[in-house]
Amino acid sequence: MQTSIPKTGIRPNPAGDWPKIDPTAFVDSSAQIMGNVIIGRNVYVGPMSVFRADEIGPDGKVHPVIIEDSTCVQDGVIIHGRSGTVVQIGKDANISHGVVIHGPTTIKNDCFLAIRAVVYDSVLEESVWVGVAANIMRTTIPANTWVPAGAIIRSEQDTLSFRLTNLKEQQYKKDVFDASATLRESYLKLYGG
Amino acid sequence: MQTSIPKTGIRPNPAGDWPKIDPTAFVDSSAQIMGNVIIGRNVYVGPMSVFRADEIGPDGKVHPVIIEDSTCVQDGVIIHGRSGTVVQIGKDANISHGVVIHGPTTIKNDCFLAIRAVVYDSVLEESVWVGVAANIMRTTIPANTWVPAGAIIRSEQDTLSFRLTNLKEQQYKKDVFDASATLRESYLKLYGG
Amino acid sequence: MQTSIPKTGIRPNPAGDWPKIDPTAFVDSSAQIMGNVIIGRNVYVGPMSVFRADEIGPDGKVHPVIIEDSTCVQDGVIIHGRSGTVVQIGKDANISHGVVIHGPTTIKNDCFLAIRAVVYDSVLEESVWVGVAANIMRTTIPANTWVPAGAIIRSEQDTLSFRLTNLKEQQYKKDVFDASATLRESYLKLYGG
Repeated sequence: MQTSIPKTGIRPNPAGDWPKIDPTAFVDSSAQIMGNVIIGRNVYVGPMSVFRADEIGPDGKVHPVIIEDSTCVQDGVIIHGRSGTVVQIGKDANISHGVVIHGPTTIKNDCFLAIRAVVYDSVLEESVWVGVAANIMRTTIPANTWVPAGAIIRSEQDTLSFRLTNLKEQQYKKDVFDASATLRESYLKLYGG
Repeated sequence: MQTSIPKTGIRPNPAGDWPKIDPTAFVDSSAQIMGNVIIGRNVYVGPMSVFRADEIGPDGKVHPVIIEDSTCVQDGVIIHGRSGTVVQIGKDANISHGVVIHGPTTIKNDCFLAIRAVVYDSVLEESVWVGVAANIMRTTIPANTWVPAGAIIRSEQDTLSFRLTNLKEQQYKKDVFDASATLRESYLKLYGG
Repeated sequence: MQTSIPKTGIRPNPAGDWPKIDPTAFVDSSAQIMGNVIIGRNVYVGPMSVFRADEIGPDGKVHPVIIEDSTCVQDGVIIHGRSGTVVQIGKDANISHGVVIHGPTTIKNDCFLAIRAVVYDSVLEESVWVGVAANIMRTTIPANTWVPAGAIIRSEQDTLSFRLTNLKEQQYKKDVFDASATLRESYLKLYGG
């Protein structure tokens, strides 16, 4: 057992890949960003989150965890991929407190994942809304779908009765997005980023 | 991006507010307590919890997260409020492992939130019991209500069939409360608090 | 309140018990391992996990949290026991991201707990599969049972209709297990363990 790992959250994986984090992003000092993780412009990463790309695939490489521009990731979010799989989160997405995302997974632009949602081996098309504590497994969710809180989604069958997001939800999403952008700016200023 | 934030969990928010923590409280060294957070007498805060009051409201201020006297907050709990909102947790409450509480929310005295409960934009009157992995959104829960494990509460309609807590649950709550008080005392002694 | 606790995750409890961690195990530097915790050979413990054995029982002792050989514990897992209770996790188990296990609980060899499962005051016999976000309370689960995602289990009655794990799930479990063993080896090598 080791006890001497340097106490920084941004660190390489066993294949030697270091995270690539855009200078305009803000990553809280308590977050753990490990290995082949690519974080784009204007991303916010909250306290205690873990992004971990570290399982070496059959091709000898670790596939990436990618967070695209202006996406907000709140506290205690866990993102990990199995060996040989990619996690890609598009632009302008909101990943709330305590979400778990497991690869292979693609979350396209402008999605909103509420508190404690779980997404595993799935695709969320653009502007999907995932309610509090909803669980999505091995399913592609069509664009603009509203997944209710606590839903257990195992296949596309389970999503057929779901409505689309309404104007109120779209406004709420925009408000959260704007607040997160302000937060990122203010933390960059606080810490001289 | 910054990498030089001081590695302490108790720190200011971008508005310059520092947490105010009573000397009789115990906060684990791995917890992140950020910004306008007010922690009362004899509170216990477990490892890896995040209390974060950092979004500046329309009035230019960050509204507080308040934890009143003798409340126990276990490991991995996340408490956060949107800009302009308050989170207030009353006295003698028990907030179990992995709970998420999001403002605006008021949790009155003597409530018990079991493992992985989520409370969002809600009011819990006194002595409410929230079961394991129950999710409460935009609802006021009457005093002494017993919310079953896994419940998804979106409105007062969803709570009409719930019974009140029974003597067994009240005793259990008291046992947990006493154990937490002992734990807080023993950690203060261990670390010379 | 204290602010001077040493910033290491492996530390004693108030009774003075230190974790006992086998030299062949790997514990991530951000995990918090506190008190009477016994970690066996070839165990992997991921980032941000908390194993905490710290409540002193009526006999003046803190009962242990035991993780047996070759078990894999992923990110953000919380394991805790009430005073006077034991948590024992057998060999070759997989405890996924964000699981909470609360004592008294016994999880026997070769169990698979998927993302965000909660096990409280229960016994899982050998090779049980617990689905994503399933919650098990005060119940003994027979060997080889497949507990579906999101299930709320309060008694053995709730498990009577469950099938056994199938060959596909057993293969998946083996794949995850092998990947975790590789991960442990590669991190031990990275950090010179």
